[in-house]
Amino acid sequence: MTSRESTRVGRYVRMVAVPGSGDELAENLLKVAEGMRGAPGCELYIVNRTPDEEDAVWVTEVWADEASSEDALNRDLGEAGLGSVLPLLAGPPEFIELAPVGGPGLSS
Amino acid sequence: MTSRESTRVGRYVRMVAVPGSGDELAENLLKVAEGMRGAPGCELYIVNRTPDEEDAVWVTEVWADEASSEDALNRDLGEAGLGSVLPLLAGPPEFIELAPVGGPGLSS
Repeated sequence: MTSRESTRVGRYVRMVAVPGSGDELAENLLKVAEGMRGAPGCELYIVNRTPDEEDAVWVTEVWADEASSEDALNRDLGEAGLGSVLPLLAGPPEFIELAPVGGPGLSS
Repeated sequence: MTSRESTRVGRYVRMVAVPGSGDELAENLLKVAEGMRGAPGCELYIVNRTPDEEDAVWVTEVWADEASSEDALNRDLGEAGLGSVLPLLAGPPEFIELAPVGGPGLSS
């Protein structure tokens, strides 16, 4: 698999709120995202709605390496408000794991 | 749907190569991505492999608005090499449409 020796990891995370709570889920995830700003190794943490599913939120994540991703996940569970997200979910988050290769938006 | 009055549009595009052509597909998409650098309204155009499917490539796109997205698509079909991508595909691309809201990696 071509990865150009990057250690970067990424994922698309799909979360679905209990019916009617999509707005609240998105707002709370934006707070988590702000808490990630400046976290070591955090390159992208973008919160997205999707026109097709009003209670779903997708988060686009890119991290410099696996360790920074894990550190932040552990940290944000305690500090950055992911505790305000989990109770809104209709089910467990789903992940598409990525190995980012390059392109505009990724620092070289 | 909360969108904070942003006109931004985004999508995750999943492309699957004919068996064994995942590397070539990713390389050709990186050339398309380089052609997008500096395209008006292009905020992200990131090429990703995924560890779970060696012949699949995901592209993370964010555009300033729908018009810039459409303009670039029309342009790149002719100029930036998407013509070198289509023959490698095992089937049509699939899209998850997004309305990006905010977070690190998105300019405010």
